[in-house]
Amino acid sequence: MAKIHGDAALVPSTQRIELFSDGVFAILLTLLVINIDIPFLADTSVPTILDGLMRTLPHLLSFAFSFFTLAVFWVNHHHFFSVLSRTDWVLLWHNMHLLFWLALVPFTTAFLGEYPDVPLVAAIYAVNLALAAAAFTLMTRHALFHGCFTKSETPEAERRAFVRRAFMGAAAYGLAAVLAFGSPWVAWAMIVCIPAYFVVPRLLKKN
Amino acid sequence: MAKIHGDAALVPSTQRIELFSDGVFAILLTLLVINIDIPFLADTSVPTILDGLMRTLPHLLSFAFSFFTLAVFWVNHHHFFSVLSRTDWVLLWHNMHLLFWLALVPFTTAFLGEYPDVPLVAAIYAVNLALAAAAFTLMTRHALFHGCFTKSETPEAERRAFVRRAFMGAAAYGLAAVLAFGSPWVAWAMIVCIPAYFVVPRLLKKN
Amino acid sequence: MAKIHGDAALVPSTQRIELFSDGVFAILLTLLVINIDIPFLADTSVPTILDGLMRTLPHLLSFAFSFFTLAVFWVNHHHFFSVLSRTDWVLLWHNMHLLFWLALVPFTTAFLGEYPDVPLVAAIYAVNLALAAAAFTLMTRHALFHGCFTKSETPEAERRAFVRRAFMGAAAYGLAAVLAFGSPWVAWAMIVCIPAYFVVPRLLKKN
Amino acid sequence: MAKIHGDAALVPSTQRIELFSDGVFAILLTLLVINIDIPFLADTSVPTILDGLMRTLPHLLSFAFSFFTLAVFWVNHHHFFSVLSRTDWVLLWHNMHLLFWLALVPFTTAFLGEYPDVPLVAAIYAVNLALAAAAFTLMTRHALFHGCFTKSETPEAERRAFVRRAFMGAAAYGLAAVLAFGSPWVAWAMIVCIPAYFVVPRLLKKN
Repeated sequence: MAKIHGDAALVPSTQRIELFSDGVFAILLTLLVINIDIPFLADTSVPTILDGLMRTLPHLLSFAFSFFTLAVFWVNHHHFFSVLSRTDWVLLWHNMHLLFWLALVPFTTAFLGEYPDVPLVAAIYAVNLALAAAAFTLMTRHALFHGCFTKSETPEAERRAFVRRAFMGAAAYGLAAVLAFGSPWVAWAMIVCIPAYFVVPRLLKKN
Repeated sequence: MAKIHGDAALVPSTQRIELFSDGVFAILLTLLVINIDIPFLADTSVPTILDGLMRTLPHLLSFAFSFFTLAVFWVNHHHFFSVLSRTDWVLLWHNMHLLFWLALVPFTTAFLGEYPDVPLVAAIYAVNLALAAAAFTLMTRHALFHGCFTKSETPEAERRAFVRRAFMGAAAYGLAAVLAFGSPWVAWAMIVCIPAYFVVPRLLKKN
Repeated sequence: MAKIHGDAALVPSTQRIELFSDGVFAILLTLLVINIDIPFLADTSVPTILDGLMRTLPHLLSFAFSFFTLAVFWVNHHHFFSVLSRTDWVLLWHNMHLLFWLALVPFTTAFLGEYPDVPLVAAIYAVNLALAAAAFTLMTRHALFHGCFTKSETPEAERRAFVRRAFMGAAAYGLAAVLAFGSPWVAWAMIVCIPAYFVVPRLLKKN
Repeated sequence: MAKIHGDAALVPSTQRIELFSDGVFAILLTLLVINIDIPFLADTSVPTILDGLMRTLPHLLSFAFSFFTLAVFWVNHHHFFSVLSRTDWVLLWHNMHLLFWLALVPFTTAFLGEYPDVPLVAAIYAVNLALAAAAFTLMTRHALFHGCFTKSETPEAERRAFVRRAFMGAAAYGLAAVLAFGSPWVAWAMIVCIPAYFVVPRLLKKN
């Protein structure tokens, strides 16, 4: 059916894939908090409540880190699609591949929140994010090089930088997974710093 | 009220039904993972963690298969609506009928994840997908033949091929339900292969 | 700030309220099924599975009825907003009022699924829908009479019919709540028939 | 990549951030009710059911208040973005900051519903809303003063009033957190009255 994006003037060809992905991102960000059970309080004295909150703290922290990480993925996704003018079947499936790994993040986040100091659990969390970043790398490489779907001629150096940045993320999460076996706290530190690397320089430049 | 799609130039008549359906698909894809409980670990030795993950494996696999299947439904839904130029009340309800069966998928997926080797449970999962595919078949038949809502004159052969492909999916899932009583693993194999049939050839052609 | 809907040509003034409401409807429809626990099976013989499904049946039925009811609300909401050309603060809050009662439907549905034969529980479910229908009535009355937000001059008879139909729904659910104390099955029957009244005649006419 | 908002005529630059935020708001509003467990009934006599509902009442009330509060945030968010003509990286992250605190609201709401009369729990709920209102204040200040992203020249007095109103909200919730230690019921009263302050005068004026 050649008419698949027939009325492109009214419905830009990347619009529905963006809206669908936005829906998935919005749900993932809000579902993260669903896994956090409110602390059970034996009595309602201030020390008991603070103690209950302290037990919930690893869950709140892993929620906060995952929220931040998924937010960085959304911002990069938003940025990436804003330079595209059209899409194809392969891109659709690269995007689904990315969303698959991101959909697992609430599960690995809850696992990390329950066992924050276990190397293998921290490594599983990092591997999940490494696979998501790898899927993002493959998607950008397809669209910016094989497909040439950019709105206008973006210089090759810029396109190369975009894919390289995505690959760096995947490699860094892979490294975090390995280092987690040395100390899970190194993995936690990297899980905070990797997204920050994608955000802080850009915010400083723009300010 | 004759004005129902009065301002069609600004708001294309299929836009809101597409966005609503996208919302449902996005939620279903992400809800699948909510049903997966993190494994309880008696201690945090590596064998215990791997054992816990092995117990979670059927849930992770049924999540992955359902994610893939719903993704194929979304891609076909996206493709189908992109060739339509208008909608009617009957199409709206055909779409609701489809979403009803899809909304049950997280339930049947969790059931299959809990009892992966029980023929009747695998059959229930396959019947659920067969009914969803049947609803999709009825919707395409209504829109492409009874309603003639296509954006421009699509050849009848192409329209016929579209409906036939949808029907083939429904028939294949029905067959999987029957074969599950022979062996649930045959049903699992078909559950993986049926969506692949809708994806792989198209990706190979486009690459 | 007089500029609130300044760029109306690009962003029609009802678009964001429609998309937001679509998101709420999409989530409600899919959340209904989350409340359904998969049956626990002591063994995996066919009678045990069928017995487990029979125990789940009231939940599946109350899910199906609520899905159908919310779908009717969505279709009417879709229809209603498609005749509007603009919105105001009061309409925004009428819509929030409607969404508030609809957001309670998963709770009252789960309650009905757990205690399907208890008059007071069936009455609570019907009262919830009566309040939702009343909110819808108030919203249509505001927009079609006080505000005159319709895209073009819709005859007063048609506008009156629209509000009256919404009011009839509220009254019918109120009646179902009262009759539930006689027999909860009468309430169940009305819960099925009231949405059908809004759907079947229109589908027959359009076919 | 300079092309980030290249095709602004088709895709207004604030559209995707609005749709993404709408998704988050829609999910938060509907997730609130998920945390409410249906009452367990030892028998199905009317007094037992009413007693069960009375035990659920604090959860229903905290759900209702949070629904109302999040609805006010959505309406203000909607209003705020409707006066913007463009966005930048910093605004994107101010918005994420706001959504982060709002995403915690289902957690603090469930906590308040479980322990409605505990000062520290009421204070935590109020602090959560104070931080959300502070994030909103920072976002409006950035966009209306540092960025000047308004669609046309909005008088400085109006822009100042917008930021001041947001700040008043943050300050009022902060005060509620402090007063909760005197009496949690004062905090409950303020939690109801603060959103009303943002809604009632405007509705009266518009009516």
